Amino acid sequence: MKTIEHIAIFTSGGDSPGMNAALYGIVKKAEQSGIRLSGIRKGYEGLIDGDLVPLDAHKLQKMVHRGGTLLKTARSKRFLTLEGRQRALENLQKNEVDALIAIGGDGTFKGLLAFSEICDLPFLGIPGTIDNDLAGTDFTLGFDSAVNTAIENIDKIRDTAEAHNRIFLIEVMGRDCGYIAIHSGLGTGADAILIPESAHDFIQLLEKAGSYDREEAFIVIVSEGDELGAEVAAKKIKEINPDVDLRITKLGHVQRGGNASAFDRMLGIRLGAAAVEALLRGRKNVMAGILNNELSLTPFDRVVKEHQVNDELQGLLKIFGN
Amino acid sequence: MKTIEHIAIFTSGGDSPGMNAALYGIVKKAEQSGIRLSGIRKGYEGLIDGDLVPLDAHKLQKMVHRGGTLLKTARSKRFLTLEGRQRALENLQKNEVDALIAIGGDGTFKGLLAFSEICDLPFLGIPGTIDNDLAGTDFTLGFDSAVNTAIENIDKIRDTAEAHNRIFLIEVMGRDCGYIAIHSGLGTGADAILIPESAHDFIQLLEKAGSYDREEAFIVIVSEGDELGAEVAAKKIKEINPDVDLRITKLGHVQRGGNASAFDRMLGIRLGAAAVEALLRGRKNVMAGILNNELSLTPFDRVVKEHQVNDELQGLLKIFGN
Amino acid sequence: MKTIEHIAIFTSGGDSPGMNAALYGIVKKAEQSGIRLSGIRKGYEGLIDGDLVPLDAHKLQKMVHRGGTLLKTARSKRFLTLEGRQRALENLQKNEVDALIAIGGDGTFKGLLAFSEICDLPFLGIPGTIDNDLAGTDFTLGFDSAVNTAIENIDKIRDTAEAHNRIFLIEVMGRDCGYIAIHSGLGTGADAILIPESAHDFIQLLEKAGSYDREEAFIVIVSEGDELGAEVAAKKIKEINPDVDLRITKLGHVQRGGNASAFDRMLGIRLGAAAVEALLRGRKNVMAGILNNELSLTPFDRVVKEHQVNDELQGLLKIFGN
Amino acid sequence: MKTIEHIAIFTSGGDSPGMNAALYGIVKKAEQSGIRLSGIRKGYEGLIDGDLVPLDAHKLQKMVHRGGTLLKTARSKRFLTLEGRQRALENLQKNEVDALIAIGGDGTFKGLLAFSEICDLPFLGIPGTIDNDLAGTDFTLGFDSAVNTAIENIDKIRDTAEAHNRIFLIEVMGRDCGYIAIHSGLGTGADAILIPESAHDFIQLLEKAGSYDREEAFIVIVSEGDELGAEVAAKKIKEINPDVDLRITKLGHVQRGGNASAFDRMLGIRLGAAAVEALLRGRKNVMAGILNNELSLTPFDRVVKEHQVNDELQGLLKIFGN
Repeated sequence: MKTIEHIAIFTSGGDSPGMNAALYGIVKKAEQSGIRLSGIRKGYEGLIDGDLVPLDAHKLQKMVHRGGTLLKTARSKRFLTLEGRQRALENLQKNEVDALIAIGGDGTFKGLLAFSEICDLPFLGIPGTIDNDLAGTDFTLGFDSAVNTAIENIDKIRDTAEAHNRIFLIEVMGRDCGYIAIHSGLGTGADAILIPESAHDFIQLLEKAGSYDREEAFIVIVSEGDELGAEVAAKKIKEINPDVDLRITKLGHVQRGGNASAFDRMLGIRLGAAAVEALLRGRKNVMAGILNNELSLTPFDRVVKEHQVNDELQGLLKIFGN
Repeated sequence: MKTIEHIAIFTSGGDSPGMNAALYGIVKKAEQSGIRLSGIRKGYEGLIDGDLVPLDAHKLQKMVHRGGTLLKTARSKRFLTLEGRQRALENLQKNEVDALIAIGGDGTFKGLLAFSEICDLPFLGIPGTIDNDLAGTDFTLGFDSAVNTAIENIDKIRDTAEAHNRIFLIEVMGRDCGYIAIHSGLGTGADAILIPESAHDFIQLLEKAGSYDREEAFIVIVSEGDELGAEVAAKKIKEINPDVDLRITKLGHVQRGGNASAFDRMLGIRLGAAAVEALLRGRKNVMAGILNNELSLTPFDRVVKEHQVNDELQGLLKIFGN
Repeated sequence: MKTIEHIAIFTSGGDSPGMNAALYGIVKKAEQSGIRLSGIRKGYEGLIDGDLVPLDAHKLQKMVHRGGTLLKTARSKRFLTLEGRQRALENLQKNEVDALIAIGGDGTFKGLLAFSEICDLPFLGIPGTIDNDLAGTDFTLGFDSAVNTAIENIDKIRDTAEAHNRIFLIEVMGRDCGYIAIHSGLGTGADAILIPESAHDFIQLLEKAGSYDREEAFIVIVSEGDELGAEVAAKKIKEINPDVDLRITKLGHVQRGGNASAFDRMLGIRLGAAAVEALLRGRKNVMAGILNNELSLTPFDRVVKEHQVNDELQGLLKIFGN
Repeated sequence: MKTIEHIAIFTSGGDSPGMNAALYGIVKKAEQSGIRLSGIRKGYEGLIDGDLVPLDAHKLQKMVHRGGTLLKTARSKRFLTLEGRQRALENLQKNEVDALIAIGGDGTFKGLLAFSEICDLPFLGIPGTIDNDLAGTDFTLGFDSAVNTAIENIDKIRDTAEAHNRIFLIEVMGRDCGYIAIHSGLGTGADAILIPESAHDFIQLLEKAGSYDREEAFIVIVSEGDELGAEVAAKKIKEINPDVDLRITKLGHVQRGGNASAFDRMLGIRLGAAAVEALLRGRKNVMAGILNNELSLTPFDRVVKEHQVNDELQGLLKIFGN
């Protein structure tokens, strides 16, 4: 195996808070190890276009807390083509890159799997997505920040909901995964939580909401991937009780931004340093994650799997709101 | 004039951060003056139903910062009827109330004007609405908090917008008044601000957005009362340039809740104390407000007017985003 | 074993964000299981004084996010005496309490161990302390919130430190444990982190700080338990370079309060529900914790041990600031 | 008068949130007016050293919210000497600067007064200090942000104070001016507020604190400029009642940093634009401020005066805590 002297890094797919912390972890560990680093701008797009830039440790030290990503990110249609991937390969060769670190979600790792067919450089992945929908890590980078943003906003909505004794249906992100909904729903004392993974007894919810005690708010957290969705749920509640005072709020993209939480800053730094170290130890085509509070490495083809809501959470859902 | 020994207070209409601070200002000033206080729950509804409760100064001292309102609030159809107002009058007489303080917006003060036809008790108003759409005060209670909530969320969205070089259309509250949009748009470095009061050169915005430099985010703040609205604006931009990466986010009811800002806590306390003092000095049927940084009292029929965006703000809009 | 029909709960020692979430987890799980609950006010003091109150699930649902503790807390000298413990026992018997849940730190669990000599009721513990200094759990309740409060404040200080190219020594809490310092130091890109567990090469720090590049801030995070402390460190830096522009800030008790973070809310709910369940399954004299992301139960005499900074963190410290 | 084609700007003295917003206001207004701008780094130090840099409108647009100052700041002993001021003059001449805008506090404006003796360029000032201790403006830039930071931290401390029924003495900034203390004390429901401007009946406070109802927290806000100070106050309370559970916390430099509040962002933009406009209209040696919610210009020699706590605030202090 060739000695690794030059690592290139990119962020890809949806951005998430903690990506800059991961970059900071990478540059500091590389600095300690005497490794040269290059950043690739805008994910696979920059790889195809040869958009490499030096990474500045001092700049990253000052933005370790910030949401977004210094390297920008993008989704790339061109990388889905062989031609795109070949141009990417040429750029890596031209720049004498010895290894690649990618921070992103399942789409990113699928891209690396496809790329590995023509490129035998070692690839290392870091799970960066707010959805917490990857196997191989208990927590993805950005999930904790997104939940914190969600609960802070839901706390605010509770104020006004209580003032009016109102029903609120609040939609949170998470794609097909109910993790953000469960964590933000439990953490805000929601009366019901609707997630894709759990066939909820909707009739029961409707009766609870439609006939609820008018002296209190009634908060329902709806995962964006839920089969029903906030609008249909609202319509059904209105059918049961047309007089209810009901509002829908979709928290939206605020959940993707903002300063990273303490947890995500630490997670990013740990995973960034671990990714460099794993490459130096000769590992390739694995994603660095945290399993059972310890660093672990999982092959790409096993991270792109369904992340089920575990039994403990299912049990909590039954107690707290479903 | 009868000596005032017992004042009843209620909050009405949409809630806004700072209402509890105003209640705190009222109870402390009343305590100092030896006045008995009652709270009326749920606005005019509680007035009609005789839902009076004692007000606890200690409890309010500990919730001076909190959004919502201890007394709850509601909109009341029954108070629009003479019968409703007569029942309200009976309750005030039965409870030997000598004066009434109402915290709310234009609907609240219109209600007081109607009520004054059959009830000659002195009424005092406090402007509680996030929209800043009342004459007679430079700032309504809750406006500053709502703008702070808006800018904190827009700052978060900027992170993710910059990561993707994305166009974001962000809708903020304000009903027919563009104040929240102007303040939150200027304060977040938005590229354009669309408000109801200003005929904006939309073509220019479209061209700016449709052909914008892909190396940066492009943030448009849209007031909910704007003639165009976020969806139509998005559609028009897409017509000019179908390839733009564009998202819409509506901040929604989070703007109504959350802890009051420092400004609104102080404003609430000042207006609350001033309202009690004005009643004790014999004033009636006026709203306490802050004009030119000084306490002022304005008759109800003059506060329910249009609040125009002044020349200075219009000038800033031209420089910063329109 | 007697069937458990009535559980009493108290919070003890220093308060920490997440205690109310744990109470919420307890009441909801007990509600589901048909168990009667009583809250004991002010920790062991209330146990001695028989200060038992009913616990209201609705009230806790609305304050699941709030710092502090609904049940109040205290340190108790009287419980250190046999007489105090005997009065506590009498109160439990008089109130027909079948089991006891205590939320607190090592002092709390030592108290339970002493109490178990005269009282054979089953005891269950929940780790509530911001210091993360207990064995038997990867995270104590309140630690994540305290670190989030610390980093938000350190982020603010960085602004002003950068504006002046200033050295800042910032003291954070943690007693004899450097966890808060490590997490908040790494998460804010600090230039150095001083903790009790690690013999730091102070000369190196002094030279780094005393001769630092005047075009940037220089941030040192000092754990309150560090052998040196912020004042001495400052003095030594000044000896090397009397002209440095240096400030000391101690974050202080803000780290104990504030709304719980998302992580602590979830942790509190999980541990609260788990504690009730463990009691119902016949477990006693153990603390519920999270080890390797799974619920675990550890006997009291093993939680009161030193919690060492693990190898991974020691390695990170070497890279990032020591 | 020479036409103004080139304006130089610097920030000086203690930094405050909103300074970047003011810079943003200046660059946008100058852009509209076709004026060339230069930034001077590190206040008067950079003026003496000729450290001029171009100002980037795009960069400022993205950091309009951020605390600190893009241009850095410093205190300068050299500018107190005639030699220093002469070198500053030479740099302005060499760079063909036609006018100067300074953002800072009273020390900054005294510097401009001294400088005007040898330099007849027009100077314009913007009040940037968290202390709100200048005449000529109702609010200085950074004051509202500092109060918001203070109240958020005091709210957190209240959580833990309530949990223990503790007395807390919390010191806030403000130099010789009690504004931050008054606003943050009233806004957090403090039990007492100690400020330099008001001879407080300390005995009364001591009795109140020393014998306070143990079922609640007792919060005292102490201005850093108060004659007594937190330590002495604590000592005196302990003399009356040695058993009180009492803590002191000094909020410190966090009050200087953090993102600017909505109010300060708007204030900065307004004052920045107004400063450029005033220069273009031929005004000189005045500070732009907000008096009675309107832009106003006040000669330097009149802003450097004592800013008294007005009668309304004195009245509130009597009601709410003294």
